Amino acid sequence: MSAPGRLRIVGLGPGGDAWITPEASHLIANATDLVGYAPYLERLPPKQGQTRHQSGNRVEMERARHALRLVEDGRHVALVSGGDPGVFAMAAAVFEAIEEGEPGWRDIDIAVSPGIPALQAAAARIGAPLGHDFCAISLSDNRKPWPLVEKRLAAAANADFVIALYNPASTARPGRIHDAFALLRSLKSASTPVVFARAVGRADEHLYIETLAGANPGLADMSTLIIVGSSETRIVRRRSGTPFVYTPRGVMVEQ
Amino acid sequence: MSAPGRLRIVGLGPGGDAWITPEASHLIANATDLVGYAPYLERLPPKQGQTRHQSGNRVEMERARHALRLVEDGRHVALVSGGDPGVFAMAAAVFEAIEEGEPGWRDIDIAVSPGIPALQAAAARIGAPLGHDFCAISLSDNRKPWPLVEKRLAAAANADFVIALYNPASTARPGRIHDAFALLRSLKSASTPVVFARAVGRADEHLYIETLAGANPGLADMSTLIIVGSSETRIVRRRSGTPFVYTPRGVMVEQ
Repeated sequence: MSAPGRLRIVGLGPGGDAWITPEASHLIANATDLVGYAPYLERLPPKQGQTRHQSGNRVEMERARHALRLVEDGRHVALVSGGDPGVFAMAAAVFEAIEEGEPGWRDIDIAVSPGIPALQAAAARIGAPLGHDFCAISLSDNRKPWPLVEKRLAAAANADFVIALYNPASTARPGRIHDAFALLRSLKSASTPVVFARAVGRADEHLYIETLAGANPGLADMSTLIIVGSSETRIVRRRSGTPFVYTPRGVMVEQ
Repeated sequence: MSAPGRLRIVGLGPGGDAWITPEASHLIANATDLVGYAPYLERLPPKQGQTRHQSGNRVEMERARHALRLVEDGRHVALVSGGDPGVFAMAAAVFEAIEEGEPGWRDIDIAVSPGIPALQAAAARIGAPLGHDFCAISLSDNRKPWPLVEKRLAAAANADFVIALYNPASTARPGRIHDAFALLRSLKSASTPVVFARAVGRADEHLYIETLAGANPGLADMSTLIIVGSSETRIVRRRSGTPFVYTPRGVMVEQ
């Protein structure tokens, strides 16, 4: 039997080396094997003696099991993920694979290293739109029924959360983002600030600020994260440059 | 008139230098002035020629205005915050101060540098409890009416979000966390996994996993973040060590 391996599930943040934590860099440098979706591995410089295992983006369970089998062979595996691995990303897939897989997988030396989530990076770029209670909803209905997405959107709108929408565009179901906006428009003020944050931290980063009534949901693609304000969210105009968008820390009551 | 100053609102992550991003380290090293709540400044090594401006934890607006005035004097200010500055922290206070303050403050060179949020660090430590739709609610009612907190808790429970509770303990109102648990217990299954994550990344870190029925909300203090699972959240027991807690990426429908 080989020496015990270990698995580290590592978040790289949403783009840009300046957001990769020292912990993540250390874990990647000390891994014998890197496993991940190809564009994430491409962000990391090659290293002598380190093996890379690339995969496509629709095979999370297969990738998780591949990483676990490498650990069984005594390898020190860094499974890399964009953003934070715990937010709509690889960490949950690994624990699903462990629960459904070999009994011995439960006792593997495994840890998750957090990364800057895309949501927080997008928020930082525009001001502080998440300054108060917020929620994050994936619009993908690959693995959940669409009525549940609608129920969560309505609950979040009615309870006046700031709402972050992950996975707003799907090649299989391009109409979902329009359905979601129609629902939000029926429940929230037309003047609610909306931010489209595309490819934050990458060379092709683009920010777009609009009102809920004025926003064109068709502009969202697979790299876009959408933030829909609460009733308190405000746009602060400047003489030049992008306005700030922020949500006050409190709801207006007596101060 | 002095050369223009600038303001960087910098997140240090929830504790531990290994989570401070290279961007944050760079901004701190290049600031002429550091402004922040004393325990955050104490995490940073002193630097020759750099001025520190410490303040208490209940004076966010005062601290924000102090930072803005330093920038008016041409200083390069890093305003430091624990975790992510955009999540229940300093960034929103700065934009509030800007909106209410001197007209010239709107045109200050200002940027937010995201940090690892306490929520994502806590989640990483325990597995992947945020693997699906989630929300974050502050239980502090300093700046919002308690009925709004209850409305959000109920909406989040009824729409089956994973729920993260910030600021669960208040010296002024220690009963609020008990009220919140009573409400969640009336709406959610008794067996729902609950995680208490205290001081994540610090020497006195402590994790506590229980069911919603079995958890003792009185154990939460000012350094505790609570994660309450959705109906899908699972506990994976191991032969030794802390169990994993994770929320599957999908809701069980046909795969």
